[in-house]
Amino acid sequence: MVSKQGVMKFRPITCIVANSCGRSLPVIRRHSPPGYRAVCDSDLAMWAIAAIWLPLTVSFSLLSTDPASSARFGRLVLAHGAVDTPIFMPVGTQGSVKTLHPAELELLGAQIILGNTYHLWLRPGHELIREMGGLHGFTTWQKPMLTDSGGFQVWSLAKLRKITEEGVHFQNHLDGMRMLLTPELSMEIQAALGSDIAMLFDECPPYPCEEAYAAKSLALTTRWARRCKDWVSANEPRSGDGRQLHFGIVQGSVFAELREQSARELVELDFDGYAIGGVSVGEPEAEMFRAIENAVPFLPPDKPRYAMGLGSPPQILEMIARGVDMFDCVMPTRVARHGVAFTLDGPLHIKNLIYAKDARPLCESSHPHVAGFSRSYIRHLFRAGEILALRLLSFHNLHFYLRLVAGAREAIAIGAFSDYKDSFIRRYNQSENP
Amino acid sequence: MVSKQGVMKFRPITCIVANSCGRSLPVIRRHSPPGYRAVCDSDLAMWAIAAIWLPLTVSFSLLSTDPASSARFGRLVLAHGAVDTPIFMPVGTQGSVKTLHPAELELLGAQIILGNTYHLWLRPGHELIREMGGLHGFTTWQKPMLTDSGGFQVWSLAKLRKITEEGVHFQNHLDGMRMLLTPELSMEIQAALGSDIAMLFDECPPYPCEEAYAAKSLALTTRWARRCKDWVSANEPRSGDGRQLHFGIVQGSVFAELREQSARELVELDFDGYAIGGVSVGEPEAEMFRAIENAVPFLPPDKPRYAMGLGSPPQILEMIARGVDMFDCVMPTRVARHGVAFTLDGPLHIKNLIYAKDARPLCESSHPHVAGFSRSYIRHLFRAGEILALRLLSFHNLHFYLRLVAGAREAIAIGAFSDYKDSFIRRYNQSENP
Repeated sequence: MVSKQGVMKFRPITCIVANSCGRSLPVIRRHSPPGYRAVCDSDLAMWAIAAIWLPLTVSFSLLSTDPASSARFGRLVLAHGAVDTPIFMPVGTQGSVKTLHPAELELLGAQIILGNTYHLWLRPGHELIREMGGLHGFTTWQKPMLTDSGGFQVWSLAKLRKITEEGVHFQNHLDGMRMLLTPELSMEIQAALGSDIAMLFDECPPYPCEEAYAAKSLALTTRWARRCKDWVSANEPRSGDGRQLHFGIVQGSVFAELREQSARELVELDFDGYAIGGVSVGEPEAEMFRAIENAVPFLPPDKPRYAMGLGSPPQILEMIARGVDMFDCVMPTRVARHGVAFTLDGPLHIKNLIYAKDARPLCESSHPHVAGFSRSYIRHLFRAGEILALRLLSFHNLHFYLRLVAGAREAIAIGAFSDYKDSFIRRYNQSENP
Repeated sequence: MVSKQGVMKFRPITCIVANSCGRSLPVIRRHSPPGYRAVCDSDLAMWAIAAIWLPLTVSFSLLSTDPASSARFGRLVLAHGAVDTPIFMPVGTQGSVKTLHPAELELLGAQIILGNTYHLWLRPGHELIREMGGLHGFTTWQKPMLTDSGGFQVWSLAKLRKITEEGVHFQNHLDGMRMLLTPELSMEIQAALGSDIAMLFDECPPYPCEEAYAAKSLALTTRWARRCKDWVSANEPRSGDGRQLHFGIVQGSVFAELREQSARELVELDFDGYAIGGVSVGEPEAEMFRAIENAVPFLPPDKPRYAMGLGSPPQILEMIARGVDMFDCVMPTRVARHGVAFTLDGPLHIKNLIYAKDARPLCESSHPHVAGFSRSYIRHLFRAGEILALRLLSFHNLHFYLRLVAGAREAIAIGAFSDYKDSFIRRYNQSENP
């Protein structure tokens, strides 16, 4: 499991020991979120050295694994700071996590956010953002950022798409202008944005999809991955003072052999992390989990794994149990704008009449920034069309997701992830909220 | 100038001395905003006593008057706290200052905000708000609040209005239901809201308006004021732990004699403060100033004066110079939602192409909550339809207005108001901002 790239990829002892002894290990407390418990106090000297050494030398270190599932607690060190995994990344499509001020993202304890290459390329343009100091300088967000490749948005938003070996020809959704996005251009745009993690340009096949098409598409995605890698090798893009990381995207639709093939081909090319793409495109939940299960065994355990664009709170926990480390989803902010708040008892539709005189906060675990407001008041704001309603629900839902993954990390660290997952899902699914 | 009501209306020495010696007096520093300068250090003992005694005993105390104009610096003590005047009141029509969180109003140093009786009566209803702890409990805003009477909104928003001696019959603008608003009901709704200051129910004549109609309307407003007073005497409405104050509204359109008559009749009824209404209803700016000038001389100097629904930054200073103490206006938040930021060099239209790569903040005096963002980024957010753009511009514009009146207070305290006003207006009107 020692990386080919030598000391700069020094394999964390934690993972090796954790895997061999089959139990969770002491959590490195140096950057741990408040509330974490130390699991044992042995080998303190070794851990002290590791705590200082690991973040300087490796991108990703596994700190603890769950004995009863594939869940893992780790740390990913990026150019703009460290990220604890499993992590949820709030989505800032156009350089803003919808309705929120960056100071509120800090208040939420967000560790990494996502930006969309397609949107930012079209407006305001990557050259403008480069001139304004990259996406970090432009938006003022100084913690890690991940950018997607634009491939998914070309697929889901643009019109008159035509996929060729060169790239994707399309008409953009803003003014209908004909454009061409290629693997090299996607890398160039992401280099201009200066994100900590750039995603490789892929083709996302639809669901349902013939096996022959999925195989052909997968082969194209691999060839594009090679072109992305060539561009990166030639241009060595930076993020702040560090190196920009690059994650490959496993495709293969619902076909186990194709998922395996895609994973093997990408791993052969050796990227900094691997995403599972082509999920949450209309397939049943069971298919989604199978896509994860079909890919994860072929991904190196010492690299972060990212399930793109997912999912509901129970789905997040199910995927953590299957060994996924990173998540992003527009759901918490999008459903907020439709009046839905996540609670431990399931989703709550704030527009419902039953909340008209409900003096309680949205949820017993609400963040103080929101907990002072009654359901009654938030319902009123929502009905009256006040922007504050969208702000409060968006903030609340992101807090709910960030607490969900923080709870998962804590649970993995103390070897109690299965209990955490099962208890959460049981209560969540017994929802009695109207 | 000693009030008829005895010790509870003890006339502040400050005003008397200030008026007699014709110069500004030492500022009572006890609750002064940061940055205020002491003007002289004589009579410290007297001031120390006054600083403690005045807020406990009087609603309004004049701390300093401008030697060269009618501008005055004062303090209004309300049930939920003290307010320094001249003051600008951000408008929270539906129980929310548009786009902002109450914590941001605190950050802005807002001392008092406004709520609209008409809107809150229709939705969510004053009985619901009473059950939820009044407007303070409902919204969580714990500092002073003023509510208008609903009269202006019935005039400007509702349909099929019919004014009778009893009140105003109308169809509301939400669902067209036929409703009747009377002086007693307006007082009852405002009592349920529990605002610190309630406005009397008046009729606001249009512009232009025949003198005969204005005279008839004014007489009705006076009769309604008497009915409001009777309701208040019988019901003694509260605000938090204190008494709710009540302000009469001077009408009379553009007719000097009618303004005088209205002021005299209301003063005879003895209210806690007086507003000048029926301004900013389409008349030229000079007529607006004349309406103020025609009313102020007949209002008692020891009561606060409030110009309703006004105005641009230079207009605010011109009215402070004419002896007005309180202002509210939707302009800062409304124009923000159309992409306009106030700056010392006049309004700035952020959508303009010239700001596409402008790395500067909106204004050299921007609040830190906004100053970190470039014009380029805010322009992008605005073009991309991101709510954060509305938030940043709304916050910035309210900060601009609150700084404007804070600067006026400082200037009055050191006897430099005319310089302050003239310098501000000169620079503002030489605007070169596109």
